[in-house]
Amino acid sequence: MDWHELAPMDIEKRSFEIITRELGGRTLDPERAPIIKRVIHTTADLDYADTLYFSEDAVKAGKAALLAGASIVTDTRMAEAGINKTALSKLGGAVYCFMSDQDVAGEAKARGITRAAVSMEKAAVLTGPLIIAAGNAPTALLRLNELIWEGRIKPDLIVGVPVGFVNVVESKEIIKASGIPCILSLGRKGGSNVAAAIINALLYTLHDREQ
Amino acid sequence: MDWHELAPMDIEKRSFEIITRELGGRTLDPERAPIIKRVIHTTADLDYADTLYFSEDAVKAGKAALLAGASIVTDTRMAEAGINKTALSKLGGAVYCFMSDQDVAGEAKARGITRAAVSMEKAAVLTGPLIIAAGNAPTALLRLNELIWEGRIKPDLIVGVPVGFVNVVESKEIIKASGIPCILSLGRKGGSNVAAAIINALLYTLHDREQ
Repeated sequence: MDWHELAPMDIEKRSFEIITRELGGRTLDPERAPIIKRVIHTTADLDYADTLYFSEDAVKAGKAALLAGASIVTDTRMAEAGINKTALSKLGGAVYCFMSDQDVAGEAKARGITRAAVSMEKAAVLTGPLIIAAGNAPTALLRLNELIWEGRIKPDLIVGVPVGFVNVVESKEIIKASGIPCILSLGRKGGSNVAAAIINALLYTLHDREQ
Repeated sequence: MDWHELAPMDIEKRSFEIITRELGGRTLDPERAPIIKRVIHTTADLDYADTLYFSEDAVKAGKAALLAGASIVTDTRMAEAGINKTALSKLGGAVYCFMSDQDVAGEAKARGITRAAVSMEKAAVLTGPLIIAAGNAPTALLRLNELIWEGRIKPDLIVGVPVGFVNVVESKEIIKASGIPCILSLGRKGGSNVAAAIINALLYTLHDREQ
């Protein structure tokens, strides 16, 4: 089909139809399906149908936090850029990335830890409903877990989808055991794009967008 | 190993060592290896060792354009956010994303095509060395190809790594046949993060960063 004949709004619709077809006979939890499909839409990687982990209460907790105007803290400028700010601000929410902040950089250098770890400490002083969306740095999740155990932070939802080869698998297992509602990409895969896709899927469900 | 004991700068180094080990006996072209490895580092997806396609002259053309202070035009804010602007600006280059521009949105709506397609027309009026980095929209590549054939644009390099299910595979095959130096992720996979990783790998090689 000539690409000129396919209207922009039909491209996404058709993509989701293909994804649904390729997932074939699988029965996805209806509450989780829009999230799983949007991540596959973002990555063209059907593995996520198997590797996305949801704690029992994750979707409900995430939606409630967004409806209450949650702050979302991400560990990359890319995830920040990918989250739909129009949809988020309509609910009174906002997204923050502290990675480039001077105080975070200075503190990280002084202590010899990553800026992502320090940025979780900065997230801990925010008030109101909170979602952590980590798409890059396992150290963000590892420090976050310590802060949870110290009683210094209690996010409403953790989207924990860092990607890579060092401490990544472990960081997700630790969050899985934290008792905090979470959506995780078990294994090595994930990324800023996956983090943004999960947040956007939650937002679009709340805005009654079709997918 | 306790994560506190691993210095931030060692995490990336160790990640690349793991990638090199997992690629095992494969012989990667030395000029292409840093790009392939950085994409795998960004995605934790070893498939890219097989699916990244380089035209014969792509790496040399990309480096020459960056050294000459190239403009990079991307099709997403995420790719724009992911490209290392410090490394780019040291060479005199800059990155542009026209997707949110009012004139692009208006033109796209009026003509019933995607903003990504219109943004390629906007790229065509830039002067000087030019790299197109498309990580999302196949329609960017399809319109780009038309502009190339019409003689309205001649990028020094096309990084063509859109992701998805509709027109994605075809868009890359069309660019492959365009005669323009290109780096492509053949198949459905790709993404804004992959586009940024390829540009950054080229930049880091020029800046003599280890990986």
